[in-house]
Amino acid sequence: MDTSLTVRDATRDDLPSLIRLFAEDSVGGHGDTTDPVALPQYESAFTAIEESPNDLLFVGVVEGDVVATAQVTFITSLTGRGTRRMAIEAVQTRADMRGKGVGSRLIIHCLDVARERGITLVQLTSNAKRADAHRFYQRLGFEKTHAGFKMRLDHAST
Amino acid sequence: MDTSLTVRDATRDDLPSLIRLFAEDSVGGHGDTTDPVALPQYESAFTAIEESPNDLLFVGVVEGDVVATAQVTFITSLTGRGTRRMAIEAVQTRADMRGKGVGSRLIIHCLDVARERGITLVQLTSNAKRADAHRFYQRLGFEKTHAGFKMRLDHAST
Repeated sequence: MDTSLTVRDATRDDLPSLIRLFAEDSVGGHGDTTDPVALPQYESAFTAIEESPNDLLFVGVVEGDVVATAQVTFITSLTGRGTRRMAIEAVQTRADMRGKGVGSRLIIHCLDVARERGITLVQLTSNAKRADAHRFYQRLGFEKTHAGFKMRLDHAST
Repeated sequence: MDTSLTVRDATRDDLPSLIRLFAEDSVGGHGDTTDPVALPQYESAFTAIEESPNDLLFVGVVEGDVVATAQVTFITSLTGRGTRRMAIEAVQTRADMRGKGVGSRLIIHCLDVARERGITLVQLTSNAKRADAHRFYQRLGFEKTHAGFKMRLDHAST
């Protein structure tokens, strides 16, 4: 399995596969959908990621199919003498491809990119319900040192 | 106390006060220091934050003194139909100013900025050791839904 996996930057052509990947996820509860009505929102998000100097979007591809994805964001902060950190977001592996080393390869790719760019701190959050994912990150060398907080804001407009 | 607090964008003139604020923090263990040898690293981090279209750095000021700070990063991801989220990082309140509503005012400022910009999700992580901070964020309406993972990368060079 591992040998046939390629990790590369996402292109706009990957968008339908990426949307499907997120829509199939049941734990996240992010309201993702392949309904064409939502397509413009995904397209505009893709453009924002593409145009951001601090974001990269990766896909894991097996036999031409996008089976996994992860996004990384570079954040420079003053703490730690001006640490440049990498935040990994929106990690997803297709359900039937889990436990096959796909996710590891994807995260290792992120870590390689971090090292190439001189990043000294890599961080991510994982839903508290995803015990398997927590063990997965710990096996890769991450330490569960923090609690992750979220707040949804509702908007009457937009 | 609350009435005399001003929250505004940080300027380069705030840098010495900001460094002191991080250097005085004992829990984070980020190795911050007021030693002038580290100043160029902080200066270059400040420049990176200033130049980033997706980052804002705020300070809380009481009687001309910088007593608190927070940084926000805007991240657009595909999940959630292209959610634009705000990540709050590097939140710090001077030890003698805690419990006086300073931190709340700062976070509420971040949330106001998020609403102005149509952000629907605000997220942050807090060191697992900071039980007080966790209650503080929960009082403000955040939910502790995630686990936060970190990995330090060592570099022989740079």
